[in-house]
Amino acid sequence: MKLKTEARETLSTPWPHRHRHILDLDDFSPGDVELVFNTAEAMKEILSREIKRVPTLRGKTVVTLFYEPSTRTRASFELAAKNLSADVVSVTSTTSSVVKGESLVDTIRTLESLGADVIVLRHPCSGAPNLAAQSTSVSIINAGDGWHAHPTQALLDLYTVREVKKKLDGLKVVIVGDVLHSRVARSNIWGFSLMGADVVLCGPPPLLPSWWGKAYPWVRLEWDVERALDGADVVMALRLQLERQGGEAGLSLREYIQSYQINGPRLALAKADALLLHPGPVNEGIELSPEVSQGSQSFIQAQVSNGVAIRMALLYLLCGGGA
Amino acid sequence: MKLKTEARETLSTPWPHRHRHILDLDDFSPGDVELVFNTAEAMKEILSREIKRVPTLRGKTVVTLFYEPSTRTRASFELAAKNLSADVVSVTSTTSSVVKGESLVDTIRTLESLGADVIVLRHPCSGAPNLAAQSTSVSIINAGDGWHAHPTQALLDLYTVREVKKKLDGLKVVIVGDVLHSRVARSNIWGFSLMGADVVLCGPPPLLPSWWGKAYPWVRLEWDVERALDGADVVMALRLQLERQGGEAGLSLREYIQSYQINGPRLALAKADALLLHPGPVNEGIELSPEVSQGSQSFIQAQVSNGVAIRMALLYLLCGGGA
Amino acid sequence: MKLKTEARETLSTPWPHRHRHILDLDDFSPGDVELVFNTAEAMKEILSREIKRVPTLRGKTVVTLFYEPSTRTRASFELAAKNLSADVVSVTSTTSSVVKGESLVDTIRTLESLGADVIVLRHPCSGAPNLAAQSTSVSIINAGDGWHAHPTQALLDLYTVREVKKKLDGLKVVIVGDVLHSRVARSNIWGFSLMGADVVLCGPPPLLPSWWGKAYPWVRLEWDVERALDGADVVMALRLQLERQGGEAGLSLREYIQSYQINGPRLALAKADALLLHPGPVNEGIELSPEVSQGSQSFIQAQVSNGVAIRMALLYLLCGGGA
Repeated sequence: MKLKTEARETLSTPWPHRHRHILDLDDFSPGDVELVFNTAEAMKEILSREIKRVPTLRGKTVVTLFYEPSTRTRASFELAAKNLSADVVSVTSTTSSVVKGESLVDTIRTLESLGADVIVLRHPCSGAPNLAAQSTSVSIINAGDGWHAHPTQALLDLYTVREVKKKLDGLKVVIVGDVLHSRVARSNIWGFSLMGADVVLCGPPPLLPSWWGKAYPWVRLEWDVERALDGADVVMALRLQLERQGGEAGLSLREYIQSYQINGPRLALAKADALLLHPGPVNEGIELSPEVSQGSQSFIQAQVSNGVAIRMALLYLLCGGGA
Repeated sequence: MKLKTEARETLSTPWPHRHRHILDLDDFSPGDVELVFNTAEAMKEILSREIKRVPTLRGKTVVTLFYEPSTRTRASFELAAKNLSADVVSVTSTTSSVVKGESLVDTIRTLESLGADVIVLRHPCSGAPNLAAQSTSVSIINAGDGWHAHPTQALLDLYTVREVKKKLDGLKVVIVGDVLHSRVARSNIWGFSLMGADVVLCGPPPLLPSWWGKAYPWVRLEWDVERALDGADVVMALRLQLERQGGEAGLSLREYIQSYQINGPRLALAKADALLLHPGPVNEGIELSPEVSQGSQSFIQAQVSNGVAIRMALLYLLCGGGA
Repeated sequence: MKLKTEARETLSTPWPHRHRHILDLDDFSPGDVELVFNTAEAMKEILSREIKRVPTLRGKTVVTLFYEPSTRTRASFELAAKNLSADVVSVTSTTSSVVKGESLVDTIRTLESLGADVIVLRHPCSGAPNLAAQSTSVSIINAGDGWHAHPTQALLDLYTVREVKKKLDGLKVVIVGDVLHSRVARSNIWGFSLMGADVVLCGPPPLLPSWWGKAYPWVRLEWDVERALDGADVVMALRLQLERQGGEAGLSLREYIQSYQINGPRLALAKADALLLHPGPVNEGIELSPEVSQGSQSFIQAQVSNGVAIRMALLYLLCGGGA
């Protein structure tokens, strides 16, 4: 509860003066989130047009700097930028001099000098975007850093729920799976709590250790998936890193599926109009059964579409729009 | 003969209603091919301009999704799309989350939700584009799948011949080399036969097994290259996959060159105005001797140029042009 | 001295008639360099605008063909091209059919047939751009070939110095480090000498062998860094290829740092207003101490920015501008 009260008090300061970067949602006020939502709304209108392009960011340069592979997040930012007529330069760890051992800070400074206006950074190390932000006057957007944060994913998740439910306050949001290693979970805990939703975390104890209760005291931990799902408004399954299963997690894939897979009967424990979310890509048959993954409660494709609108909104706001 | 008669009877239905995807030429009518040719003609006019860009596909998004490396095909599609002012997003297996084991269908659905209008797909598995097409309402263009098909290559080959010969009907087309493993050969057999040309396949028996006679009964098989080339209007050499030679094929590179390389004396057996084609990249000195590869009968560079026009035409038609 | 006199005599012929390609500076006259500088000046004005884009090269296609990884050079060319509204297609060795063993000449011819107007080529083999230039009518820009040349880097270095010092003639330019393996050094020796500067090379004997005295007789060799730096106007440190150190060079990293690192006390031996340059990426703490790398005499970020302007100028001139 503490988080929500504090955060709500910071509602006043308007956006662009506070946010030169998007590093995580922990410095967002509810008003900031609303501003992003309103801007994304306008972007969705653009995306519904026959020619879904506007010249808003013409002459701006967005660099995607990805130290981890990604289809959907990189393509989502790239399309968001192009829809706004910005130019995009892609730098990935396999095609760049990252292999030369060039330091992150040096790369960021170089991209700044080359004329980048926004750098979209994905990095396997938690905190890399914060380090980057300290070394440049270019806007940094965190597109996922280690286990730490994935704020644009959380914003698109919040937006997708709000679009359907018309509100976030008071909703019961259940996040199921490998919470421990999930930057998506961390940013969503923050975002949903901030907007007044009640967050329940659910997963096998090795992937949801009890000390999380101290780290996020306003959140409920639940190891039993049936109990967790009871009456949920939103069910968010997390991606299981298959290569990591076995040793560390102390449970087999079969055991995970038995105990935590979201399937038809389990989803029926949530409210009848509950939304099913997943950050993708889905391991169908593992985190989700095929019937729910492609069922009528699944909003997974809506999440992807909304992601483009949310990223357009953020690029627009960071480049001085809405000031 | 059967193929040709049947195919000609389907001439009636006009293009965009039949073709939401380009998967292979086996569902093309001669009228469909003519429509592509006429559209490509208009595209060549654009390419001859000082500023070779038109705004036709402004606001459209073309995604190239390549699970196999390629310079020429990917760049050809990318340039075709840019010439029409479409935006292009490139996703390749080395820079994408393909490495995460993300499924093809999931990737296709994600690209659809991101706003792709056309997905250009190259995949090592035969049939992958058909699978993709079943899971999306976005137009899929097969840019080569396994040993199965490479329809845009066949269309540019047909177009290159027609441009020079002014007709395809009645021409003798000899395809020489590793027919067995060639998607280029398969799509060209279909395309040239459809347009009334007589196709002769030629290669060493391990690379041109006799059962092909049953698979393509209207086509002539010939293991002797001199006999095959006699009186040919078109000589198409296929690329030899060097890494595959030796064991499987049961013949050495030296033996292949001795018996099947197209060189000056052999090309002289074809008609004096015969065209020499090759899908590229050429292993010069293997499939072709340098003198014929760069000789006056070689239309290899014309094939590459025409490929851009053909792909512009296909993108245009798939995006609703010519409806 | 011989070089300078000869080169100055060739001043007369104006640019585009002589330079269809940019392979190295050894066929540049001082007048050519001045023309590039004046054009880059105009490009910097464009870069200072709110919307830093002009339609000058609309409809032109620039292909970056990189057989070696690179962030800064590739991104610099890509942004330069996009600032001028050219379309850019990137082909890199990891995502292209380079892995198929396709020959350089074949790739160049294919890119020409696809419609490339300029090919920006980086290749690990010295002389590759010259070979490419002989096989095509498309303009080739050498973006670094083996140990041979990196002419656009040298031009941006010259430009950065001229911008601050208002002249190049008579300046003392000291190039420090692994001269032997440096294409940057080779092109800068040529460029600075051509413009009338006095070039001093400095490095440990294994990385600056005495036979260089015969190869570049108008240049001074100096193994003692303190003596070399005395009264310098420009100090250019070269990047040490760390993976190469040890065996071949016959000296340890510790020994290199002790004897050749540019640090505060050493830089103080140069003139008070000397510029410190580095082609990047800097191994901070090795070639440069952090205090000088980020100190007030460092123009490393200015080099990066000026690189975009220089490359815009070259693309413009090669595409017929200023004719």
